[in-house]
Amino acid sequence: MQRVDTDLAFMLQFENVAWYDNKKVRILDRRIYPTKVKFITCDNHKEVAKAIADMVTQSAGPYTAAGMGMALAAYECSNLSYKDQINYLENAAFTLSNARPTTANRMTLVVNGCLKVAKTAMENGNKVDEAIFEHTVKSMNNRYSRIGTVAKYLVDMFPQNGNIMTQCFGETIIGMMLKEAKSRNNNIKLFCPETRPYLQGARLTASVAYDQGFDVTVITDNMPAFTMQNKNIDLFTSAADSICLDGHIVNKVGTLQIAIAAKYFKVPYFVTGIPDKDYTNISQVKIEERDPNQVLEFRGIKNTMDGVKGYYPSFDITPPSLVSGVVTDKGILSPYDLYRYFESKVENYY
Amino acid sequence: MQRVDTDLAFMLQFENVAWYDNKKVRILDRRIYPTKVKFITCDNHKEVAKAIADMVTQSAGPYTAAGMGMALAAYECSNLSYKDQINYLENAAFTLSNARPTTANRMTLVVNGCLKVAKTAMENGNKVDEAIFEHTVKSMNNRYSRIGTVAKYLVDMFPQNGNIMTQCFGETIIGMMLKEAKSRNNNIKLFCPETRPYLQGARLTASVAYDQGFDVTVITDNMPAFTMQNKNIDLFTSAADSICLDGHIVNKVGTLQIAIAAKYFKVPYFVTGIPDKDYTNISQVKIEERDPNQVLEFRGIKNTMDGVKGYYPSFDITPPSLVSGVVTDKGILSPYDLYRYFESKVENYY
Repeated sequence: MQRVDTDLAFMLQFENVAWYDNKKVRILDRRIYPTKVKFITCDNHKEVAKAIADMVTQSAGPYTAAGMGMALAAYECSNLSYKDQINYLENAAFTLSNARPTTANRMTLVVNGCLKVAKTAMENGNKVDEAIFEHTVKSMNNRYSRIGTVAKYLVDMFPQNGNIMTQCFGETIIGMMLKEAKSRNNNIKLFCPETRPYLQGARLTASVAYDQGFDVTVITDNMPAFTMQNKNIDLFTSAADSICLDGHIVNKVGTLQIAIAAKYFKVPYFVTGIPDKDYTNISQVKIEERDPNQVLEFRGIKNTMDGVKGYYPSFDITPPSLVSGVVTDKGILSPYDLYRYFESKVENYY
Repeated sequence: MQRVDTDLAFMLQFENVAWYDNKKVRILDRRIYPTKVKFITCDNHKEVAKAIADMVTQSAGPYTAAGMGMALAAYECSNLSYKDQINYLENAAFTLSNARPTTANRMTLVVNGCLKVAKTAMENGNKVDEAIFEHTVKSMNNRYSRIGTVAKYLVDMFPQNGNIMTQCFGETIIGMMLKEAKSRNNNIKLFCPETRPYLQGARLTASVAYDQGFDVTVITDNMPAFTMQNKNIDLFTSAADSICLDGHIVNKVGTLQIAIAAKYFKVPYFVTGIPDKDYTNISQVKIEERDPNQVLEFRGIKNTMDGVKGYYPSFDITPPSLVSGVVTDKGILSPYDLYRYFESKVENYY
C-alpha cells in the first residue's frame, strides 16, 4: 500500500480535497484512497463538474471542488467582456452545482457565493480567480470552525470510551469529532460499515480514525444490526446530504436500515449538520440513482452473470421518528422542531 | 466470463456440488462462481474438511461434501481391519462434521448416517465407499424432494408476479422455489442483496434465478430497507443454518437487519427449512467468526489502511418476533410452535 509521508486527516481534507493552483484544479481521488494516493488534474471547470459526477471526491469534497472550479472558470473567461464573463460564470455555476442532483441546493449556495465575490472583484478591478479562490478557502475555514462546534455537542453524547457506529464518511465532522474526543481523553472505539459500493466507511472513515490513533473496526454492510447487539454499540451517528425541515434525513444509502436497527436495539441515532432552509419538505429532494454496474462489480471485477440487473440508489431517507437528535452548531435539536435553528436566539454555549 | 454449456441450476446443485469419483472428491468452487467455473479436487477426507472450512462450497453444499468425504475416507481405510476401519471412519466423521462450528449438529446427523451405512456394508461384505456414495446420492434426492414440498408452501405465499427479496443463497430451496413459481406461471421478480464478503446473493442466487429465466436485481447490503420501501417488496424469504425450537433463526449475517426492516415496513418474512430437533434453545448455537481480513478486502484487494481491524461474524440470530412463519415440508408453522413439527399428524396436503 502506497502512503505519502503526511498527516492523513490532512490528506483527506483541506488543500488535498480540491485545490486551485497554476490554472488547474487538483482533486484527491477518493475512489482509490488509501490503497493508492493519486490526484486528478482538471484543466477546466467542466472537468471539475465531471470529477464531482464521477465521485472522484464526495461528502463535503464537492463543495470545495465547486468553489475551486468557479475560480478556474473565472480564469477561463478572464479575457472576455464584463457581460460575457458574468454569463460564462453563471453557466459554470449551473454546470458545477448540478453535477449531482441530491445536493444541488447546497451546491447552488456555494456557487452563488462565488458569483457574488466575482462581481465585486470585477467591479474593483481585482483578479477574479484569485478572489474566488480566497473566498473558497475562507468558506472551508468557516465550515471547519462551525463543524468544530457541532462536534463538541456530538461528543457530549458519547459515553467515556464508548462504542460508536458510523455510516459512510462525514469528512469534516469525522475529523472534528475525533479531535474533540481526543482532547477530552475519550478513547471511543469506532465501528464502520464499509459502505458499498464506494466503500467510504472502509477506505475513508476508518483511515481518518486510525490515523488519529483510535481503535477502529470495519464491518460489511450486512453486519450493523448484529454488531449493535454483540459489541455494545452506545450510539449511531452520521452526517447528512440533506436535513429537511420536516425532519427527514437524506444520507448515503444504508443509513435508513441502520437507523431502523438502532431504534430496534434502543441505540440513539444522532445526525450532524445544518438544516437545509430551502428543503421544507422531503418531497423536494431528488434521490440520485447511479450506474447499476457499480453494484454488480468491485474495482472492475464483475460478480454477476451477464443479464442480472443492478439497482444503485445513492441515498436513502430516514424519517424523523428514527432520529434522536439533529446536532447543529446551535445545539441538538429535535428532528420535529428544525425551524428553531433559524429562529434560535440561544447563544452558542461553547 | 467463462461459462460451461450446461444448465445452471444443475451447475450449482447435484453432482457439481461435490462428487466422489475415481477415489477423489471433486467440489465446485463457489467462491469464484460464476466469474469462473472451477473445481477443487480433494485426494483425502481431510482435504474435503478443509474445503468446507475454506467455504469452497457452502449453504447445503457441505452436507453433500461431508457424505462424499465419508465415502473417500472409507476408501482410504479399506485395507484396515474391521475395528480400525470403524475407528478411522469415526475420526473422519468428527473431522468432517466439525469443519465449521455453527452447523456441526446437522453435519453430525449426515456423517452418523454414513457411519451406519458403513457398518452394514462391512457386515455384508459390500464395498464401503460405494455404499456411502449411494447413500449420499439417495440423501440428496430425499432432500430435493422434501425441499420441493417446502417450496410449494412457500410459493403459496407469493403474490402473482410479486417482488421477492432473498438473503444469501438457499441452494435447494432457491432452485425449487423458482421451479415451483415457474410451473404456476408466477413471474416473480427477485431482489438479491449481494451478501458480502462472500457475495452469495450476487454470485449464486442471482445466477440460479437468471438462468431459470427470472427477472433478478442485485443490490448492495446497505440497500434492502430502501429497496423494500421503493420497489414494493411483497415478501422477504431466507433459508436458515439453524432453526432452533425456541423460534430463533440462525442464518447468514444480514438476515437479522433485513428482518428488522421487514417488520418496520410490514413486509412478511418467511424462513424455510426443517427445525433442528437438537437445538431446543438458541444458547446451544455457536456463531462462527471467520478471518476478519475477508471483510477488509475483496478478491485480494485490500480496502483499508494497515492497522484497521475487521470483524466477521458468519451468521446472525433473528428472534421469533420478527418471523412470520417457518415454512417446512409439513406446512407453515408459527416460530413459537415449532415442536408441532415433530408431533404433526397432519398429512402433507401436496
